[in-house]
Amino acid sequence: MADLRWPGDHRAGDHLTDAELIRDMLRVEEAWLAALVRAGVAPALAIVDDLESVVGAIDPQDIAVQAEAGGNPVIPLLGLVRDRLADDHPEAGRWLHRGLTSQDTLDTAIVLGLHRCVGSVLELIDDQVSALTGLAEHHRSTVMAGRTLTQHAVPITFGLKAAQWLHGILDARDDLRDARDRLPAQFGGAAGTLAGPSLLLQLTDGAGDAVSLARVAADRLGLPWSPPWHTSRAPITRVSDALTRATDAWGRLARDVLVLARPEIAELAEPAEAGRGGSSTMPHKVNPILSVLIRRAALTAPGHAAQLHLAATESVDERADGAWHTEWSTIATLGRHTVTAAAQTAELLAGLHVDTGRMTRLVESAGSILLAEQRSLAGFVGAAGDDFDPTHYLGSSDAIIDAILERARSGGSR
Amino acid sequence: MADLRWPGDHRAGDHLTDAELIRDMLRVEEAWLAALVRAGVAPALAIVDDLESVVGAIDPQDIAVQAEAGGNPVIPLLGLVRDRLADDHPEAGRWLHRGLTSQDTLDTAIVLGLHRCVGSVLELIDDQVSALTGLAEHHRSTVMAGRTLTQHAVPITFGLKAAQWLHGILDARDDLRDARDRLPAQFGGAAGTLAGPSLLLQLTDGAGDAVSLARVAADRLGLPWSPPWHTSRAPITRVSDALTRATDAWGRLARDVLVLARPEIAELAEPAEAGRGGSSTMPHKVNPILSVLIRRAALTAPGHAAQLHLAATESVDERADGAWHTEWSTIATLGRHTVTAAAQTAELLAGLHVDTGRMTRLVESAGSILLAEQRSLAGFVGAAGDDFDPTHYLGSSDAIIDAILERARSGGSR
Amino acid sequence: MADLRWPGDHRAGDHLTDAELIRDMLRVEEAWLAALVRAGVAPALAIVDDLESVVGAIDPQDIAVQAEAGGNPVIPLLGLVRDRLADDHPEAGRWLHRGLTSQDTLDTAIVLGLHRCVGSVLELIDDQVSALTGLAEHHRSTVMAGRTLTQHAVPITFGLKAAQWLHGILDARDDLRDARDRLPAQFGGAAGTLAGPSLLLQLTDGAGDAVSLARVAADRLGLPWSPPWHTSRAPITRVSDALTRATDAWGRLARDVLVLARPEIAELAEPAEAGRGGSSTMPHKVNPILSVLIRRAALTAPGHAAQLHLAATESVDERADGAWHTEWSTIATLGRHTVTAAAQTAELLAGLHVDTGRMTRLVESAGSILLAEQRSLAGFVGAAGDDFDPTHYLGSSDAIIDAILERARSGGSR
Amino acid sequence: MADLRWPGDHRAGDHLTDAELIRDMLRVEEAWLAALVRAGVAPALAIVDDLESVVGAIDPQDIAVQAEAGGNPVIPLLGLVRDRLADDHPEAGRWLHRGLTSQDTLDTAIVLGLHRCVGSVLELIDDQVSALTGLAEHHRSTVMAGRTLTQHAVPITFGLKAAQWLHGILDARDDLRDARDRLPAQFGGAAGTLAGPSLLLQLTDGAGDAVSLARVAADRLGLPWSPPWHTSRAPITRVSDALTRATDAWGRLARDVLVLARPEIAELAEPAEAGRGGSSTMPHKVNPILSVLIRRAALTAPGHAAQLHLAATESVDERADGAWHTEWSTIATLGRHTVTAAAQTAELLAGLHVDTGRMTRLVESAGSILLAEQRSLAGFVGAAGDDFDPTHYLGSSDAIIDAILERARSGGSR
Repeated sequence: MADLRWPGDHRAGDHLTDAELIRDMLRVEEAWLAALVRAGVAPALAIVDDLESVVGAIDPQDIAVQAEAGGNPVIPLLGLVRDRLADDHPEAGRWLHRGLTSQDTLDTAIVLGLHRCVGSVLELIDDQVSALTGLAEHHRSTVMAGRTLTQHAVPITFGLKAAQWLHGILDARDDLRDARDRLPAQFGGAAGTLAGPSLLLQLTDGAGDAVSLARVAADRLGLPWSPPWHTSRAPITRVSDALTRATDAWGRLARDVLVLARPEIAELAEPAEAGRGGSSTMPHKVNPILSVLIRRAALTAPGHAAQLHLAATESVDERADGAWHTEWSTIATLGRHTVTAAAQTAELLAGLHVDTGRMTRLVESAGSILLAEQRSLAGFVGAAGDDFDPTHYLGSSDAIIDAILERARSGGSR
Repeated sequence: MADLRWPGDHRAGDHLTDAELIRDMLRVEEAWLAALVRAGVAPALAIVDDLESVVGAIDPQDIAVQAEAGGNPVIPLLGLVRDRLADDHPEAGRWLHRGLTSQDTLDTAIVLGLHRCVGSVLELIDDQVSALTGLAEHHRSTVMAGRTLTQHAVPITFGLKAAQWLHGILDARDDLRDARDRLPAQFGGAAGTLAGPSLLLQLTDGAGDAVSLARVAADRLGLPWSPPWHTSRAPITRVSDALTRATDAWGRLARDVLVLARPEIAELAEPAEAGRGGSSTMPHKVNPILSVLIRRAALTAPGHAAQLHLAATESVDERADGAWHTEWSTIATLGRHTVTAAAQTAELLAGLHVDTGRMTRLVESAGSILLAEQRSLAGFVGAAGDDFDPTHYLGSSDAIIDAILERARSGGSR
Repeated sequence: MADLRWPGDHRAGDHLTDAELIRDMLRVEEAWLAALVRAGVAPALAIVDDLESVVGAIDPQDIAVQAEAGGNPVIPLLGLVRDRLADDHPEAGRWLHRGLTSQDTLDTAIVLGLHRCVGSVLELIDDQVSALTGLAEHHRSTVMAGRTLTQHAVPITFGLKAAQWLHGILDARDDLRDARDRLPAQFGGAAGTLAGPSLLLQLTDGAGDAVSLARVAADRLGLPWSPPWHTSRAPITRVSDALTRATDAWGRLARDVLVLARPEIAELAEPAEAGRGGSSTMPHKVNPILSVLIRRAALTAPGHAAQLHLAATESVDERADGAWHTEWSTIATLGRHTVTAAAQTAELLAGLHVDTGRMTRLVESAGSILLAEQRSLAGFVGAAGDDFDPTHYLGSSDAIIDAILERARSGGSR
Repeated sequence: MADLRWPGDHRAGDHLTDAELIRDMLRVEEAWLAALVRAGVAPALAIVDDLESVVGAIDPQDIAVQAEAGGNPVIPLLGLVRDRLADDHPEAGRWLHRGLTSQDTLDTAIVLGLHRCVGSVLELIDDQVSALTGLAEHHRSTVMAGRTLTQHAVPITFGLKAAQWLHGILDARDDLRDARDRLPAQFGGAAGTLAGPSLLLQLTDGAGDAVSLARVAADRLGLPWSPPWHTSRAPITRVSDALTRATDAWGRLARDVLVLARPEIAELAEPAEAGRGGSSTMPHKVNPILSVLIRRAALTAPGHAAQLHLAATESVDERADGAWHTEWSTIATLGRHTVTAAAQTAELLAGLHVDTGRMTRLVESAGSILLAEQRSLAGFVGAAGDDFDPTHYLGSSDAIIDAILERARSGGSR
């Protein structure tokens, strides 16, 4: 499922699609059933090894349409699943979802999808880090004009610029790892007390308490347990902030590419690929379309993240009256857009064309401006003015590149 | 196509779906072809009466995937259409899109979709206005507690509250009508000069100039002409601001319903319908789910509108480097959500249950508080305190209701 | 009072400052007192001709600190004013604010400030329209490269670019005029019923009803009457949307200037002024600082407007529980920033330096690319290829300029 | 300096005021001077022990007005400081700011202010944690109605609700500590290469390199060093995201208080204080004004945070063309509002009145609804229905409270 209005969206693959959400909800129910059985609450017959294949194909549209009545897709999904289990797996059908509430299923399913989504982003970031490490090393001595407020400033190297791009990406990597690792399962029952599963344990002489039941189910899903967070939405905002930190970093480098690939500057060019960057009417056009699409994602991510903070703060009562409902679509859109932009950025960086000749020629022609600060400082300390050369006015560029590369190598640990 | 993550989305029908966007792009191309023929630029054989059926089924997914290369769906769509026209309509295939640029096709197609979308919202607003007019009239004398900063204030009537809800909707109606009527076709060519069509007219001795050509095409689509607005995006922001003004009004009334339908207050209740408002675990639950879903839309619309303003201000050069690309998905999401919320609001208002008994009993029990201002003012002017009755402390409620109803009746003309 | 963190803020003068807000609140109270007297409710002695000077200097800080207790600045202001009136104007002190509520005073005072603020913006827009009209006329034949997605496209004229800038500003002018003219006084009393003033009229045998009283007070302030809009916030969002439409238009042109003033392009330059655009360390720097500051305002306005829409939709009950309180600071910040940006844009446009030589040289050097579409279309119709000249490939630029200039001259009336 | 439009702003004290920003800029310059002297670059005479007192009073308004020319307040501040140092501290005047750029001074000054601001928030969070720990413990067995989607759900305890409030605050505490500890000094020179200080070291045979110079200056300011982050703005967005996570948590609990303090529910009440919560016309009113003001902050914080992400992603070149300029005012506003809301939340929680009688009576009257899930589950497993008591249907509430309290006690370590 690609979004016609978001070119490149197919790069996100089946991350956070409707079909995947349904699969994730089934996984959550399956894990919960298994936990009920293991605790001796439900009979062994209630276990279903592969709920998804047992249940068979589900039309997301049917679920979507029926979702309005209860305000979420869990209720119609459960109805359909119970119907399909009735004949061959009656105990599974009977015990399905017992002790849970819709929010448990939906939140945990969203967490599963986000976990994979952030994982994909992190893999693509590894590719970016690798490409940028190479660019920073390779262009350590490639002098180019530094630009501030659009005007020529002092010389820098392209290696330093690449290292600065990397700097931002490493900041995002830290936060993405942290946010992913802190994505917990949600098992709280109707109002976050786990009263339902506790009662079931009590009435069936089950083993352990409801928290241990929840831990078992979380563990099966590969997620940490946490106190119910039905109204404490930091796990969601932490991910959305981290995803936005990533698009911040990519959008910034894309904007640099968009400037430096302007024909009057032409110091950088996007990797060439047949058919890419074309126009519907101008045959000569080779637009820097990867950067355009990356920047597009970066311009929209902050709004999505803000929306999720608003949802967090409007989480009134033991389940919010509308705020929760805004999260599902927002985080899925942000997640898909981020994977897409991650892939586009990785491709951009892997094939970025650096025209060192153009960089050098500009530095030569703009030399006197680029050295104005140097002359001024030399004059200030009364030094003779005979060594004015942009390649000698690069300060600690090397040391700064090294510091950033070291951080990249050390895995960004803090 | 309903969105699993946005329950109720199916109410938006095929508004602003991928399939509809493709149809609208075909309509734009068809209108342009017809204008080229009418001006004598293209031969009569280039005309195709019903481009959509001639071209046949198009898989939006194919177009979506190919859209990445050029950064928009027009280029792959044209390729596919030309292929399909090649055998039976070679002249149409040859002349397709000549003189246009991708932005012309996509912007005008989006405008066509928005035009219908706003039209649907306006029809549903007519239903809302009708329902609210009835409520305001019927409950003109239904006294209830006014509440400010959550606390009891002075008496109001439910008719006045309904009229105030209406007040906000009439503000939105004005703006929606205005925004819809000012949605122009976009025909500017590669950089907004109409140079392509001008050249074609000149080389083929066609009739008229490129502006008249554009007017003809716009007219066929039922849209006004405007100077190209490829970088002046007020037509889009005007619609998104107006849609947001509508969700502002509905969200506010939904939040009132959510408060007044709390079991401790219970002065209002949503229209009952079997299965609606249910829970996956609590059999007794009847949640005010229409209001929850309406409020959800209202919480997200402002962010979408802000995104479109950001796109407008980032419209650099003669076509923006990413900002334009953020518009398509944002306005479509906002448009669909608004139609959905419009329908839900119309349904909510048509069946809203008003418990006048609860209102009366609260006014009686809270009487002394609700009359504190009255006593204070009476004391201030030294009046005897023997007529303290909430039903006598309603001020100009009737006149205010009348003023708002009059505005509703007069069509909200300004 | 200039904002150290918003350079150029002093251009907004005393618009929407704390001191001005206090003055406006006093004007509202004075108008209401006068209306009470005219209706025979309050004695003639209650009238105060110039409440501001009678009351004397007021320290906004004192009011600000005391404002927390009641959540708004009206309550402490009234306390202070009553104290100061006690000796010499006891009747005025006694009758002050009778029948009003804090929101009446504060909303109407904010409206007064916004009315002047939008007026200032409109005056500065007149200057902008004048400058742009001149640029569009003067550079009607100044050919330059059109750029799309950052790359050279087809030729345009700088006159057309100026006209397109104007196009966006005229859209904003329409909306600003409309929004200003629809800014009403707020007089609704404790919960929007005007019960307080109605009671006073009744107990004192005053003339007319409370609506006519409100109309008299509104009229004294030069504002239209409206049904109370304490919970229907379109008057505020209409202004903020219109202000944002203005910053959209200015931000877009500022971003164009920032691109075209890059040293590698250098087709435009900001008006020179001694000391402007300097750096703290690079003596040669002349940064395009007006454009930088204008763009800054444009990047922030959409967020402010979204905030006000959120406040509108959260206007629960008869006075909101926090949403209303977010409006005051948001609209004032947006208003001041907009005046500042309006002045900076007017200055930028009045002195914009257009380097027609650079434009011409680029068109010559990039000629073959700029004419790729022309060649392609000519080849398509089999025309001989001997008239490929950028100055002959400008299409309807003149007609489009004329259409926009005509709109400017006709006052943008709709 | 309190903000008249943001009641309670005085609680933020002198955090992030204009005057404090000026002091912080002076501190940065002083630290840099000291580092230059220590490295042997500048003569010992260039050191000034207390630059702030040497320079004397500075009118922020003067600086603000002059800030427009260069687009930031550093340039005029340096001019003024140099003037004042000229006579008595000529060497300090000569060496002031040598090797730095405006962004170094301004970014580091903002970091200093943010560091203190977050520190204050964390202290107030300690108070909140203490109050909530007490509430969670004390009301561990206070049964009340759980509410989902505004309707009664299953029983909870008020202790659990308090623990959930705490849960969100602990999430924020983690992030605030982390963000504060990662706020680095900014020392990069004109374009992030430290070329200026490197040259000065070289020409004066100074000790060490420019990075060690920067480390010394950072150390004097109590800040960690980092590679220059002039275009990698994670240090800012990390703080703003964390501040927003805090307002998310407070806004959510304030919204709970606003619901539960409604007169029809009245299970909670704000701490009483003479004069607080009053109305300008209704003498009986006691509005929950702390919660109103806290919620206000929470509704606006997400927009500010989004603005800072936008600035981050627009950080083009080696200094951005407008985006950087949006940060100063945005982060200061967000910072002040957060301190204010932190203080209000601490006060609210310290004196929150819990009406356990009301809670109990509601649970009794709504018992059958609150136990619907329990009956349903008991029926499901065929259990006899004789122990239906809300106080026996609290599931793992105690264990969940304990888990959250344990996290609070362990210092929120991760």
